[in-house]
Amino acid sequence: MRFDEAYSGNVFILSKPDYKTADAVLYGMPMDWTVSFRPGSRFGPARIREASLGLEEYSPYMDKHLEEVNYFDAGDIPLPFGNPQRSLDMIEEYVSTLLADNKFPLGMGGEHLVTWPVFKALKQKYDDYVVIHIDAHADLREQYEGEVLSHSTPIRKVCDLIGAENVYSFGIRSGMREEFEFAKTSGMHMYKFDVAEPLKEVLPTLKGRNVYVTIDIDVLDPSAAPGTGTAEAGGITSKELLEAIQLIAKADINVIGADLVEVAPVYDHSEQTPIAASKFLREILLGWVK
Amino acid sequence: MRFDEAYSGNVFILSKPDYKTADAVLYGMPMDWTVSFRPGSRFGPARIREASLGLEEYSPYMDKHLEEVNYFDAGDIPLPFGNPQRSLDMIEEYVSTLLADNKFPLGMGGEHLVTWPVFKALKQKYDDYVVIHIDAHADLREQYEGEVLSHSTPIRKVCDLIGAENVYSFGIRSGMREEFEFAKTSGMHMYKFDVAEPLKEVLPTLKGRNVYVTIDIDVLDPSAAPGTGTAEAGGITSKELLEAIQLIAKADINVIGADLVEVAPVYDHSEQTPIAASKFLREILLGWVK
Amino acid sequence: MRFDEAYSGNVFILSKPDYKTADAVLYGMPMDWTVSFRPGSRFGPARIREASLGLEEYSPYMDKHLEEVNYFDAGDIPLPFGNPQRSLDMIEEYVSTLLADNKFPLGMGGEHLVTWPVFKALKQKYDDYVVIHIDAHADLREQYEGEVLSHSTPIRKVCDLIGAENVYSFGIRSGMREEFEFAKTSGMHMYKFDVAEPLKEVLPTLKGRNVYVTIDIDVLDPSAAPGTGTAEAGGITSKELLEAIQLIAKADINVIGADLVEVAPVYDHSEQTPIAASKFLREILLGWVK
Amino acid sequence: MRFDEAYSGNVFILSKPDYKTADAVLYGMPMDWTVSFRPGSRFGPARIREASLGLEEYSPYMDKHLEEVNYFDAGDIPLPFGNPQRSLDMIEEYVSTLLADNKFPLGMGGEHLVTWPVFKALKQKYDDYVVIHIDAHADLREQYEGEVLSHSTPIRKVCDLIGAENVYSFGIRSGMREEFEFAKTSGMHMYKFDVAEPLKEVLPTLKGRNVYVTIDIDVLDPSAAPGTGTAEAGGITSKELLEAIQLIAKADINVIGADLVEVAPVYDHSEQTPIAASKFLREILLGWVK
Amino acid sequence: MRFDEAYSGNVFILSKPDYKTADAVLYGMPMDWTVSFRPGSRFGPARIREASLGLEEYSPYMDKHLEEVNYFDAGDIPLPFGNPQRSLDMIEEYVSTLLADNKFPLGMGGEHLVTWPVFKALKQKYDDYVVIHIDAHADLREQYEGEVLSHSTPIRKVCDLIGAENVYSFGIRSGMREEFEFAKTSGMHMYKFDVAEPLKEVLPTLKGRNVYVTIDIDVLDPSAAPGTGTAEAGGITSKELLEAIQLIAKADINVIGADLVEVAPVYDHSEQTPIAASKFLREILLGWVK
Amino acid sequence: MRFDEAYSGNVFILSKPDYKTADAVLYGMPMDWTVSFRPGSRFGPARIREASLGLEEYSPYMDKHLEEVNYFDAGDIPLPFGNPQRSLDMIEEYVSTLLADNKFPLGMGGEHLVTWPVFKALKQKYDDYVVIHIDAHADLREQYEGEVLSHSTPIRKVCDLIGAENVYSFGIRSGMREEFEFAKTSGMHMYKFDVAEPLKEVLPTLKGRNVYVTIDIDVLDPSAAPGTGTAEAGGITSKELLEAIQLIAKADINVIGADLVEVAPVYDHSEQTPIAASKFLREILLGWVK
Repeated sequence: MRFDEAYSGNVFILSKPDYKTADAVLYGMPMDWTVSFRPGSRFGPARIREASLGLEEYSPYMDKHLEEVNYFDAGDIPLPFGNPQRSLDMIEEYVSTLLADNKFPLGMGGEHLVTWPVFKALKQKYDDYVVIHIDAHADLREQYEGEVLSHSTPIRKVCDLIGAENVYSFGIRSGMREEFEFAKTSGMHMYKFDVAEPLKEVLPTLKGRNVYVTIDIDVLDPSAAPGTGTAEAGGITSKELLEAIQLIAKADINVIGADLVEVAPVYDHSEQTPIAASKFLREILLGWVK
Repeated sequence: MRFDEAYSGNVFILSKPDYKTADAVLYGMPMDWTVSFRPGSRFGPARIREASLGLEEYSPYMDKHLEEVNYFDAGDIPLPFGNPQRSLDMIEEYVSTLLADNKFPLGMGGEHLVTWPVFKALKQKYDDYVVIHIDAHADLREQYEGEVLSHSTPIRKVCDLIGAENVYSFGIRSGMREEFEFAKTSGMHMYKFDVAEPLKEVLPTLKGRNVYVTIDIDVLDPSAAPGTGTAEAGGITSKELLEAIQLIAKADINVIGADLVEVAPVYDHSEQTPIAASKFLREILLGWVK
Repeated sequence: MRFDEAYSGNVFILSKPDYKTADAVLYGMPMDWTVSFRPGSRFGPARIREASLGLEEYSPYMDKHLEEVNYFDAGDIPLPFGNPQRSLDMIEEYVSTLLADNKFPLGMGGEHLVTWPVFKALKQKYDDYVVIHIDAHADLREQYEGEVLSHSTPIRKVCDLIGAENVYSFGIRSGMREEFEFAKTSGMHMYKFDVAEPLKEVLPTLKGRNVYVTIDIDVLDPSAAPGTGTAEAGGITSKELLEAIQLIAKADINVIGADLVEVAPVYDHSEQTPIAASKFLREILLGWVK
Repeated sequence: MRFDEAYSGNVFILSKPDYKTADAVLYGMPMDWTVSFRPGSRFGPARIREASLGLEEYSPYMDKHLEEVNYFDAGDIPLPFGNPQRSLDMIEEYVSTLLADNKFPLGMGGEHLVTWPVFKALKQKYDDYVVIHIDAHADLREQYEGEVLSHSTPIRKVCDLIGAENVYSFGIRSGMREEFEFAKTSGMHMYKFDVAEPLKEVLPTLKGRNVYVTIDIDVLDPSAAPGTGTAEAGGITSKELLEAIQLIAKADINVIGADLVEVAPVYDHSEQTPIAASKFLREILLGWVK
Repeated sequence: MRFDEAYSGNVFILSKPDYKTADAVLYGMPMDWTVSFRPGSRFGPARIREASLGLEEYSPYMDKHLEEVNYFDAGDIPLPFGNPQRSLDMIEEYVSTLLADNKFPLGMGGEHLVTWPVFKALKQKYDDYVVIHIDAHADLREQYEGEVLSHSTPIRKVCDLIGAENVYSFGIRSGMREEFEFAKTSGMHMYKFDVAEPLKEVLPTLKGRNVYVTIDIDVLDPSAAPGTGTAEAGGITSKELLEAIQLIAKADINVIGADLVEVAPVYDHSEQTPIAASKFLREILLGWVK
Repeated sequence: MRFDEAYSGNVFILSKPDYKTADAVLYGMPMDWTVSFRPGSRFGPARIREASLGLEEYSPYMDKHLEEVNYFDAGDIPLPFGNPQRSLDMIEEYVSTLLADNKFPLGMGGEHLVTWPVFKALKQKYDDYVVIHIDAHADLREQYEGEVLSHSTPIRKVCDLIGAENVYSFGIRSGMREEFEFAKTSGMHMYKFDVAEPLKEVLPTLKGRNVYVTIDIDVLDPSAAPGTGTAEAGGITSKELLEAIQLIAKADINVIGADLVEVAPVYDHSEQTPIAASKFLREILLGWVK
């Protein structure tokens, strides 16, 4: 460290300084304006970065070191407060650039609606891709109290975009009756309550395909992730989520990008949610970026 | 919503407006004056109602919607601070009215002593009933530091009232030696540490009987329910408690009432305890009220 | 209290049950989607109501009892998450109804932008009125990072609506240079840092006029109101704000409505902000509603 | 420190080990079972002791060192949970012993009702004494929701016991209309809102008399004492309370005992309330014990 | 309780008053000055003692009562702030005295470095002993950012002291690559991720040997122990740690001492970490002291 | 913002990117290993930077905009945990470089001991300078429990270094008797309890002299700065500290550097302490850097 260089303080641990040569780009989407219950996920990316400083750089799960991955932390996209449409447009534009530059996009939310423009950008590049969706909530609403742009709608939208048969949801334990009926009749694949066990069945069927993975931190039990807007009792442990990340890493698929959303630090004074989230991101960087 | 109608703000989600036609009545017992360690459960019912607003109205566990159950939220009984005897008398009188009106009583505590007058009111109506008690603590003391009215005594009292052989405790992991000895010698049924597995054995033996269920939120591990007065490490997960609620719902028994007690919100800034409690109450409404 | 009546739980203390005969109507505007820093004021109204239960009903400041004022708590307007325009339209429509029914509107925010539609509704009824604005922030921006609908703009908008000379700001200690320049050149009246002393000068000059008062809780020092989105060190004490409320109560003016905004409970675990806010509202009800 | 001696850990800083030779005795009254709003003051004494370890032993206000005062920390009286009458009897008996042994009693609450048995014990020893009462609340109720033993009644009771003309209240800013009327008509002396200024007037009139001082921590503004059950906006600063303690120390009166009540640590995560309380107790020990 | 005896307030529940006759001595090591991430464990021992007051004295796991064990709580060693070397010397000296007096040393940290001087003291007494190390972190560094005295080094040091083959680590899920390589090549025994299952294999191989057990509370998942400096997602439940303590209690080995370290209360407002820690210590006292 | 540039995330708001041309350099000293009570100030600088993002860039106090000042945020000096001596050496070396490069050093603590090496570095450059010390604590100890390097000693050390007559302390309300005696006899200037009023007297006497200002955030009352290690009731308001900063800005002196220390964010969940600290730093940048 030289103190006459510009300080690049709060970046994800061991982030490399050069965008051009990076294989993966970590970026924040600090948006929480359509959430229906408790806001605050706009501060998620900043606190995940801060918590990453307490991480070991080596993973005994992957037997790999962060030095072995070339990733660049691009900071947070400066989204306009209270304007969902413009925010989504900015995200889509940014991720499109990343994809054009052949970067692995690794997003940090923000509310889950931020994944919708990512889905659209991916569709421009990939004719065919699959979504693995790990979440407590089905997120299959057509609208939420009249709003089409809502944190409860992104998975429904992606079903329309890429075909419901290409969407796989895991760990779901909350939603409207209509969402669960849509899950049954639309051809999409929904696995309730559990994540690791059904993944073991599904992953072999996706052999060789392009897969985008979106993780809502609230798939964890609130005991392991109290810092989220819509906590839902009865979730999985962080052990199981770590196992799921490893299963995906070892699968014979082509992971084309990922995100981790809905970390809302203000509800978690012990900071266990950003601490856990930063560990999941480390594992994703080590296991999914190739 | 019409704004020229009286506001009925903080009621449990989807509560129906009419007592007369309701099948179940939800009521709060905001009493915490005999607790031996950390008080605060008097605010439990209000925060559970508030948290219920973040719930989905449909349950994928029960495949049922709250619209299908006719329940009325009667608010909190206005108990006199610091007067256990008068508080218990008021609860007994109120629950007796509910039972006379053929309502399913669903109580929210408050400390566990509030269940004692409910037991007494039930005894007036039912010659024969069984108690399922889900708790970290045996609550089998005869008195606590000289006080007969104590949050540690209700299960002992109900053993005397309905016969120890009709009392089934699950998940117990704390108590005095005398309480565990009483459990062994009195004829009551105590299952230590676990809830769902022993329930699977017990429920078939209760076929056709009247069953009242009292749940102390501290049966959960403190990780899942930090907001309680006497947290006790080594408890069950919310997944297991949700399973237990389902097992009871599917059993061939006649559930005649229930309560959920000891939610003390002040110790839980992430609000996971009232959030979980409101979900358990939704499942109870959907599964146990017939 | 009768328990077979519908529970009207979390209403402001001593709220009367009948809209028709009420002189004042208390209503919540749970919107926080345009805030630039820390969201959470959507839960302000609910927690203010809850805190009001700890209030005495009599005020030694006003020597008056809440029984002497006929007010109705209408609950929260169900604003659509993340849609500022529709939210503002709903507020304007609701307040227009209140004004048509000759009610004194007493609003609880939510972010400060909620006052803008109130200003518009007032303009329909009153040709001429004055705004007293008590706040840490000038709120005189024309837009905020490109957004015209922002929590930083309502006072600028009302200057255009009713004439800058009819707008009086007190306690201002934060803003852009442009806002302070606008304050100097536009003809509006801005009093920096203090509230009670300049009010003593201004109030006599408003004799007989219609006055709407909007209070942003962040005019208080963060020590007295930590639960707010944009805390700003160097503010006034609650003693001074109580004095200001009394000065307005005693002034020879016609208060036509008021609001108190920006209470964000999640940042204040001791609940002193909603506790203080409920006391200010009690004083406003006792002193300003005639 | 020798490690083979019994550990006397959490005692007030510099407490002397011998009761017999002590001039003053510090004791806790961990009772909160009659409070009407937020309980938790039972943990006040323990946290005040803990916070005292961060104190300097020398006071620049008094220019005196704790070594110069001989006081003994007797610990907490083991009061029975939920039984107000027995609790008050135990306090009265204990304080009577202290007075018989010619100790200066310095109590730590606990709710304010604990002062009532102290008043009774004092009456046995002193024919004539005066009460200085520093508080946000009048505490002049005859009963509270039907309960004669309530944290809102002790000052009314002492008016009956020693004559209203011997009771002086300072800083009062909350109460029922009836309490303020009683204050006006009964002959007692009530000074609203302020403490230090009216004390300067009153103290000379008490020359040579026996004076007991009871301080409710909620006389402070909630900004300075968030950790209390019934916080009341608009209070005094800790600077003013420190000044009041000094004024009493310098007055030509005979202080015969004192207490500090209503510290409820759970509402104050920064611990500023017990930290401030421990400083006030240091000043009382240094200035009032002679 | 007699109130004219010196108050020995905040001691571990049921601690006996006499060092001489005690079989075990509980002592605190309030040091946190070399931690790399979040400090605060210096307050661990005090809060564990405080939390122990909420414990039952009887254990249904061990079927044993604390009265049956003769232990003395010696308080905290007064370690000099910011001076690691002198702190470690004081600990070594104190524990040497305990061992010379044939006491079972039961330490409470403090950061994990405090175990290093205990290891040295044990080596003076026992030619041959084994270490069971239960922790999330390998603690096998030779130095940490240049500092040889660091909380990340004690297990490496004890490998040098007693031979790597005598060191058994359980539950490890974090460390540098070098630490895991050392674990593989040095002859020590490291069991990753799990504790109870590998203990079942290892304990029989230690038959008859002297065993010291050091537990870092962060072996628990952060959901069960948020109050620790370096929380690490993916840990075990408190149920599993309780099982591990029982396995050791029942094993045919000679437990010669133990410690529990890294409880940092400030990160855990619900106090579940000190509450759990006090329960683990109760079980250790009941099961390991013979 | 271009997202293919390296992210310089968490820097103080509007920090300029170039060290060479900067007039002032902001740097963090994240050290808290010698504190005697509550640690945590190591995280102060990071949270102050984060809080600065909520600041306005324009000050109505100074009528000046941050764009008008050329400052560079150099980040935190990477101090070795638990090694006071090496930490102080690194600080001294770094500040010496800043002074050699003619930068205005603006430090953020960290505990107060970090100012000692700054004093030494200044002495190398300036034959003659004056210290203005604004603090609750005298910090005049020769050692603290045997440690010469302690957060309680820096002002004593600087008295020896530059002559006691050149040291001015303001706001002091805590210390040992010996410290206050040293203050009286040594020739230094100590003003107890207040800051702004005595500054008005002192500043004219310093006309034309070089002045370094060190501010300990705990000079504020704990109500305004709960997030600090050694909170001390009876302090000044943030209004008064803002006034003090303005008085120094307007004085006819040559400010040669400054620091603000002892912000410990973990004790302040509402974040009012880092929010206030960032505002004080903004005012210092605008008013003192010339």
